[in-house]
Amino acid sequence: LTGDRLFAPIFTTDDLLAATGDAAWLQALLDAEAALAGAEADCGLIPAAAAEGIAACCQAARFDPQALGRAARQGGNPVIPLVAALAAEVAPDAREWVHWGATSQDILDTAAMLVARRAGILIDADLQRLAGACAGLTRTHRLTLMAGRTLLQQALPVTFGLKAAGWLGGVDDARRQLDAARAGLAVQLGGAAGTLASLGEDGPAVLGAFARRLGLAEPPLPWHTARQRVSALAGALGTVAGTAAKISTDVVLMAQTEVGEATEPTPGGSSTLPHKRNPAASAAVIAAARRAHALLPVLFTGLVAEHERAAGAWHAEWEPLSELLALAGGAAARTADVIDGLEIHPGAMSENMAASGGVVLAERVALAVAARTGDRAAARVAVGRAARDGSGFAKALSGDALVGAVLDPAEIDELLDPAHYLGATATWIDRALAAHEAEAW
Amino acid sequence: LTGDRLFAPIFTTDDLLAATGDAAWLQALLDAEAALAGAEADCGLIPAAAAEGIAACCQAARFDPQALGRAARQGGNPVIPLVAALAAEVAPDAREWVHWGATSQDILDTAAMLVARRAGILIDADLQRLAGACAGLTRTHRLTLMAGRTLLQQALPVTFGLKAAGWLGGVDDARRQLDAARAGLAVQLGGAAGTLASLGEDGPAVLGAFARRLGLAEPPLPWHTARQRVSALAGALGTVAGTAAKISTDVVLMAQTEVGEATEPTPGGSSTLPHKRNPAASAAVIAAARRAHALLPVLFTGLVAEHERAAGAWHAEWEPLSELLALAGGAAARTADVIDGLEIHPGAMSENMAASGGVVLAERVALAVAARTGDRAAARVAVGRAARDGSGFAKALSGDALVGAVLDPAEIDELLDPAHYLGATATWIDRALAAHEAEAW
Amino acid sequence: LTGDRLFAPIFTTDDLLAATGDAAWLQALLDAEAALAGAEADCGLIPAAAAEGIAACCQAARFDPQALGRAARQGGNPVIPLVAALAAEVAPDAREWVHWGATSQDILDTAAMLVARRAGILIDADLQRLAGACAGLTRTHRLTLMAGRTLLQQALPVTFGLKAAGWLGGVDDARRQLDAARAGLAVQLGGAAGTLASLGEDGPAVLGAFARRLGLAEPPLPWHTARQRVSALAGALGTVAGTAAKISTDVVLMAQTEVGEATEPTPGGSSTLPHKRNPAASAAVIAAARRAHALLPVLFTGLVAEHERAAGAWHAEWEPLSELLALAGGAAARTADVIDGLEIHPGAMSENMAASGGVVLAERVALAVAARTGDRAAARVAVGRAARDGSGFAKALSGDALVGAVLDPAEIDELLDPAHYLGATATWIDRALAAHEAEAW
Amino acid sequence: LTGDRLFAPIFTTDDLLAATGDAAWLQALLDAEAALAGAEADCGLIPAAAAEGIAACCQAARFDPQALGRAARQGGNPVIPLVAALAAEVAPDAREWVHWGATSQDILDTAAMLVARRAGILIDADLQRLAGACAGLTRTHRLTLMAGRTLLQQALPVTFGLKAAGWLGGVDDARRQLDAARAGLAVQLGGAAGTLASLGEDGPAVLGAFARRLGLAEPPLPWHTARQRVSALAGALGTVAGTAAKISTDVVLMAQTEVGEATEPTPGGSSTLPHKRNPAASAAVIAAARRAHALLPVLFTGLVAEHERAAGAWHAEWEPLSELLALAGGAAARTADVIDGLEIHPGAMSENMAASGGVVLAERVALAVAARTGDRAAARVAVGRAARDGSGFAKALSGDALVGAVLDPAEIDELLDPAHYLGATATWIDRALAAHEAEAW
Repeated sequence: LTGDRLFAPIFTTDDLLAATGDAAWLQALLDAEAALAGAEADCGLIPAAAAEGIAACCQAARFDPQALGRAARQGGNPVIPLVAALAAEVAPDAREWVHWGATSQDILDTAAMLVARRAGILIDADLQRLAGACAGLTRTHRLTLMAGRTLLQQALPVTFGLKAAGWLGGVDDARRQLDAARAGLAVQLGGAAGTLASLGEDGPAVLGAFARRLGLAEPPLPWHTARQRVSALAGALGTVAGTAAKISTDVVLMAQTEVGEATEPTPGGSSTLPHKRNPAASAAVIAAARRAHALLPVLFTGLVAEHERAAGAWHAEWEPLSELLALAGGAAARTADVIDGLEIHPGAMSENMAASGGVVLAERVALAVAARTGDRAAARVAVGRAARDGSGFAKALSGDALVGAVLDPAEIDELLDPAHYLGATATWIDRALAAHEAEAW
Repeated sequence: LTGDRLFAPIFTTDDLLAATGDAAWLQALLDAEAALAGAEADCGLIPAAAAEGIAACCQAARFDPQALGRAARQGGNPVIPLVAALAAEVAPDAREWVHWGATSQDILDTAAMLVARRAGILIDADLQRLAGACAGLTRTHRLTLMAGRTLLQQALPVTFGLKAAGWLGGVDDARRQLDAARAGLAVQLGGAAGTLASLGEDGPAVLGAFARRLGLAEPPLPWHTARQRVSALAGALGTVAGTAAKISTDVVLMAQTEVGEATEPTPGGSSTLPHKRNPAASAAVIAAARRAHALLPVLFTGLVAEHERAAGAWHAEWEPLSELLALAGGAAARTADVIDGLEIHPGAMSENMAASGGVVLAERVALAVAARTGDRAAARVAVGRAARDGSGFAKALSGDALVGAVLDPAEIDELLDPAHYLGATATWIDRALAAHEAEAW
Repeated sequence: LTGDRLFAPIFTTDDLLAATGDAAWLQALLDAEAALAGAEADCGLIPAAAAEGIAACCQAARFDPQALGRAARQGGNPVIPLVAALAAEVAPDAREWVHWGATSQDILDTAAMLVARRAGILIDADLQRLAGACAGLTRTHRLTLMAGRTLLQQALPVTFGLKAAGWLGGVDDARRQLDAARAGLAVQLGGAAGTLASLGEDGPAVLGAFARRLGLAEPPLPWHTARQRVSALAGALGTVAGTAAKISTDVVLMAQTEVGEATEPTPGGSSTLPHKRNPAASAAVIAAARRAHALLPVLFTGLVAEHERAAGAWHAEWEPLSELLALAGGAAARTADVIDGLEIHPGAMSENMAASGGVVLAERVALAVAARTGDRAAARVAVGRAARDGSGFAKALSGDALVGAVLDPAEIDELLDPAHYLGATATWIDRALAAHEAEAW
Repeated sequence: LTGDRLFAPIFTTDDLLAATGDAAWLQALLDAEAALAGAEADCGLIPAAAAEGIAACCQAARFDPQALGRAARQGGNPVIPLVAALAAEVAPDAREWVHWGATSQDILDTAAMLVARRAGILIDADLQRLAGACAGLTRTHRLTLMAGRTLLQQALPVTFGLKAAGWLGGVDDARRQLDAARAGLAVQLGGAAGTLASLGEDGPAVLGAFARRLGLAEPPLPWHTARQRVSALAGALGTVAGTAAKISTDVVLMAQTEVGEATEPTPGGSSTLPHKRNPAASAAVIAAARRAHALLPVLFTGLVAEHERAAGAWHAEWEPLSELLALAGGAAARTADVIDGLEIHPGAMSENMAASGGVVLAERVALAVAARTGDRAAARVAVGRAARDGSGFAKALSGDALVGAVLDPAEIDELLDPAHYLGATATWIDRALAAHEAEAW
C-alpha cells in the first residue's frame, strides 16, 4: 500500500515487483484501453485511425500514477481520471472513442488479468526452477540417509532424496493448480451493467475481438460480479506460497545450530553477531507465505458482490491480488534460489541419527521381536523402555529380558542399520521423478 | 468444536451435519482401518481371516466418540485410542494385525478424504440443484425488466434473467472447481515417516490395494507433508460458499422493504414484530460464507508442515475441514432452497426503475445526443444535469438547451424505454444456458 | 508491497501514506539509531560527540530506501545495510559507535513503534473528527423520524439521531481501545538475544534513557518475542476499521436509489453513466476495512515467535502493520469526511416509512390489541395478517375481525403515528452524547 | 459446528467445552429470559409472580438443543423457537410475559456475554496458573545457562530463567488485555430496533435492572450494531492463544531429539513407534492458536453490521465466539499443564552451547578484540572467520593473526565462559517477577 521498497525486495523479486507494481498496472490499464479501441475498430464500430491513435498514446510513461491515484480518490477507482488523461493525450477527433462503451470495472478487471498473466509467467518459471532443483536433490541424495522426523522427533530413517521427492511432488501439484487458474484468466467487458448496451448489437463481437487482441480467454458472459476466476487464482497462489514455505521450514529446521544438516547458499549475517549464518532467505519465504495466506479471505470474500457491481468488495481486490502474486511468486523464487544452491551435510545427517543411538530403528526391532515372540504389545513396551534407557539403545536392548531372549547382539546391530529399513523409499523417489518428467512442461 | 446443535442447523443441512460429524468421522476412520487390513490381506501380508475379522468390527456404533476424544488428549489424535479400542474388539488372533504398518496420520488423512468425498457428493448435488434453479429463473425471466445496479445505485436496465444467468455462470464455475478438487482426493499411507518400512517390499502394492478398496485416488507417493490436495479442496469450497453468498446477498437486497422485488419462499418471522418477513435463509447463507472464508487460511497454512509430520499444522486441519464442508455445502443447499422457490415481483422491478424517472437510460440519451452534436463530453454533462434535476428526467431533458435542441419529446420518450436498451442481454443468457447444458453433468 | 500510489490514495489519506511509507520508516529507523547513541552517551558508554555526530547523520534524505531494500534481501532486514550506510556517513571516529550494542530487531521494533505512534496521532484525530460529526448529526436529527431496519426490513420507527448516536458510541469505544493500545507502545532494546550483554552493566540504564529520548514507554524487559503490544495495537486498529465500515455501510444503504435518505457530500461519478452519484467514499471505506481485517491474523500469529527471534513471524509484521495503520486510519478519515458533510433527506425518510403503510408500528398495534383482548398470540397473528394484506395496513386492521373489534379507526390512526412510538430514543441519545462529552479528550 | 467430541478435547478442556457448549448456551439464553422477566417485575411492568414462574422454568434440562436448532432453521436464530417452548412451559397466566419487549438479538447477545463471562473466569484461572508456572521456572532457572537462539541459530548465552521470564511477561500482558475486554461485557436490551418502544417509558430502568440481575455492565445505549465489545474480546482472546502458542513452540523446539533440553511432563506416544515421546500437548496448543487466529476476522468483520440488525454478520458471530473462547482457553490450560510439569535438562542446555565451541560468545570476543585494536569491523571479520573454521573456535581464535595478537589463550578461554556474558539477565528476571507480583491479582 505504502510504497515499501524498503521491505518489498526481501519478500519478492525485482521482476515480480515490476510485474505487479504501479507501472505494470498502469500499462495494463492502457493495454486494455488500446485493445478495446482496436476491437471496436475490428468490428467497425469506431474508425481504425482513431483506434490506432488511441493505441499510440497508451504508454504508461505518459502518465503519472501518483497523480492518477490522488485523482482517483473522488470516484473510487483510477480508471476515471485515466480515461480523462488519455483523452487529453489523443488527437481531438479520436478523443470521443476513448473507453467507448466500457465501464471502469471492465478496464480494471481486464488489467488485473493482464497483470496476473504476466506475473503468472514469472511464477511458473520460478516453480519450474524450484521443481528442477528439487528433482536434482532427489537424484543426488537418493541414498543419503537421515532421520525422518515427526512432531520434530526422530522417527524412522529416510533419505534426504525422499524428503526432496516430497518437496518435488508438492511443487508439481502447485504448478498444476496454478496452470488451471491461469487458463481461466479472461477479459471482462460488460459496460455499465453487463449488457454492453452502448455497443448496440455488436457487444459479443467486440468481446471476442477484445479477447483475441489481448490473448486472454473469452468468457461466455461478463463476470463483473461472478468472481470465480479471481478466487481460483487466489487459491492456486495460496498453494504456491504454502508449498514454498514448507520447503523453507524444513531448511530452517535442518540449518539449526544443533542439527546442522543444511546451509543456505548465501546465509544472512547479523548486525551484531560475527558468527551468525542466518537462514534469512528461508525466513523471508516463511514470512511471505504467512502474508500471502492472510490475503486469501479478502479475495474469496470478493465473490460476495452486490448486484451488478460491488460497493467495496471489488475495490478491495486490486492491491491484495497484486500482493498475493508478488508474495507467492517471491516465495517460489527465493525457495528456488535456496534449493538450487543448498549445501547438504550428509555427515551431520548420519551423526544426528547415530547420536540418538539407533532409536529410529525402534519400530524395526519391535517388529523383529514380535515376529519371534508373537506378542506385539509386549515387544513395543520392551523396545520403548530400552529406547528411554540412558545406557544406549543397543546395550539396553541386549540387556532386556524379552528382547535379549530372542535377539543376539549381532542381530540387534544388524537391525539398527538404517540403510536396510527404508521400505518403499526408492519406489517413491522413482514415482515422484517419473511424474515430474511426464508433465508436458 | 462444541457440539453446537443449537446453532449448526441454521448454517447447514442435516445431511451435511451427518456426513461431517463425529459419527461420520469415526466410521471413516474405521473404514480406513478395515480397508488397510483388507489391502494387506490382498497382498498376502496378513491373513485374510484376520482382515475380515477386523473389518467386521469396524462399525462406528461399537465405539464412543466422546470417550475416544477424551483419551485422544494425551497423544494428540484420536487414532491412538481408537486402535486400542478396535484391537480390544477383534478376536485375539487378529489383534496384532490391526493398524498393521500404518501411522495415525495415515488413518486420519484417509478418513478426511472419505469424509470429503461423502460430503462432496452432497455438495455437488446441491450445486446442481442450485444451478438448475438459476437456469429456471434465467429462462422464465429472460425478458423481465429491472434496474441493473452498481454500487447499489440504479445504472442501466437489465433483465432479471440476465442477473440469474450471472448466478448460473458462477455456480457452474464453482462446480467445476469443486470437481477438480474432488478428483484429487487420495488415500494416504506412508507409515511412521512415509517409507512404509514396516511393510518391507510390499508398501507400494498395499498402497494401490488400499486406494482400490476405498475408491480414492492412488497418489504417486505419500502426501503426509504435501498438503496440496487439502488446499485445493479448501479453495474450491471457498468458491462454493462465496458463490452462494453472492446470490443470497442479491436476494437480501431485492427483498428490502423499499425495493420489494423478491421474497424468500418461506421468510423468517421475528420474536417480536408481527409483520416481519425476514430473508432469514439468505442471511444464514451470508453468515455461513463469512465463516467458511475465515477457515481458508488455516487450511492453506497447513501446507507449511515441518519435516515428516507437522507439530500443530496437521492437527489444526481436521475440524476446520469438516466445518468448511458443512458450511460451504450448507450455503449451497440453503441458496438452492431459496432460489428454487423465490417469489419474483416483476411489477416492483419496473416500478423501481420508473420511480427514478428513466435515469437508467441516461447513458443511452447521452449517446444519442452525442451522435447528433458530436460532443460526447457536453452531452454527458447535460444529461447528468437533467438526471439530478428535481422536475423529472424526461421533462428536464426536453428543457435542456443542448438536449432539447437535438431531441424532441417523442424521441426522448422512445429513448427512455428500457426494453430497447438491453444490448447483449439475450446473447449472454443464451451463452450461459448453453454452457450450463453443455456440461457433461 | 508494490508501490501502489495508483490505488493507495483511494483507501487512505496523504498524511497516513506519508506517516507509514518508506520515508517515514526510514526516518523512524534513523531516529531509533540516533536515540540509541544518545542514550548510550547519556549513560557514559560512548562519547557525547560521537552520539551527536551520529544523530546529525540520521536524516532519511541521506539514504535511498530502494537501494537499502535491495541490499536487505541478503540478510533479511533493512537495518543491516542501513547501519553500514549510516556508518559510512558519520565521521570515522564516531563510526564504531553506530548501532552500538543493538541488534537489527531492536531498531526495527522501535521504529515500528515510532511509526505507530505518529500514525496513531493522525488516526486519533480522525476518530475525534468522526465522533464530532456523529455527535453533530445526533443533535441535529434527534427527532428526524426514519424506519429502523433489521435484516434490511423495516422494523420499528427510530430517529436518524438515534442511528447517529449508535455510530457515536461505537466510535468512542474504538477510540478508547486505540488509546489503550497506544499507551503500550514501547521501545525495544535487548541486543542480540535480549540480554544487552554487550552493554555490560549498563543495559537497563540505556533502555531507560532510550525510552525517555523517544518518548515511548519503557518495558520491564525486552519484548522481542513477546509481541502482545503489537497484537493489542492490531486489535484496536481492527476495531477502528470495522467501526468506520459500519457507518459507511449504513450510508451506502441509505444512498440506494430506491431509498434515497442520504447522499455523500461529493459522490463519485461513473466513467460511462452521466447520472451516477456513487457512494464512492463509503465503498472505499468498506474495502479498506475488509483489507484491514484480513491483516489481523498475520499480526496475531506474530505472537508465535521461536526462541529469541522468530524465523519469519517477525519479518511478516512490518508491512501488514504499516498497511493496517494506513487502512484503519484511512477508513476513519474518509468516514469523517462523509459524515461531516452527509446530506440527509428527512422527507425520503418519512416517505419510506409511510410507503410501507405503517407496518413499522405493527408491534405497537399488536400490543394495544393484546392489552384489550389479553391474548398476545392472537393479536400478533391478526396484526401480521393485516400487515401482509395488499389493501393497506390501516384499512386491513380496521377490517380485521379481532382488531376491528377492539380498536376504532381513529385509535388505529393514532397508533400508526411513528412519532409516538420511540421508546427510549431520547434517553439513549442523551446518554451517548453525555458519554461522549464526558471523555477527557 | 459438527459435534466434534472426537477432536475437541485435544484442543480444549472439559470445563471450557462445558462452558461454551450447547447446554451452556441454552442455559445462558434462559438466564437472560429469566433476568429480563425479573427486571421487568422490578420495574413494575409485569407481575412478580409471572417473573418468578418464568424463572422457575428457565432450566436448560427442560429443553432439547437439537430440536431447537432444527426449529431455528426457519427464522435464523434459536431464540424464536426457544421463546415458544418456554412459553409452553410456564403457567398460562405468565405466558404472555415471556420475552416481554425483547427481540431475539437481545437474548442472544446477552447470552453470549454470559457465556463469555463464565468462560472468561476459567481462562483467567488458566492464565494465572500458567503465569505461576512461568514464574516458578523463572526463579528456579535464573542461572541455568543455555543458548539464546535467533532464527533458530545459537546467538548468545542466556539463562532458561530469562526465557521463562519472557514467557511470564507475555502471559501477564495477555491477562491484562483479557481483563480489559472482560470489563466490557454488558447486557444488550433494545427491543426490535433499539428503542425499547414496547416498554414505554421504562426501557432504561429495565436495562439497569437487567444488568444488575445478571452482574454484567450496563451500556449507555443498546449495542446491537455497535459490536466493539465483541471485537475487543476477540482481540484479547487472540492474544491469549498466541501467547500460549509461543511458549509451546519453544517447548517443541527444545524437545527436538537433537536438542533435548526439555520434555513435556506426559509426552504422547505414537501408534507405531515405541520410542516416540511426542510433544503432543504443545502441538495441540499450536494447532489451537492457528485455529483461534483464523477466527478473528469473522469477529472483527461483525462490526460491519447493516442498519439496526445485520443480515448475516451477527449470525456469523455465535459459533466462532464460542470456539475462540474454547480454543484460547484450551491453549492457556494445556500450556499451563505442560509448563507446570516441564522437565528441564540443564545438562543438554550447556552441552548444546559447548558443542558449538563457544561461538555464542563471538560477539564478546569481537568486542574485546575491538577494544584493544580500535577496529570493530576488522574484529568482526576475524572472529566470524574463526567461528566458521572447522578446527574449533578457541583454537581458531588463537591462531588468527589479528585475534591472536591481542588476546592470549587464557584470555580467550575466559571470554568463552558464557556465565560471564549475561548482561542484564538478572535485572530482567527481577523486573518480570516484580511486575508479576505487583499485579493486584
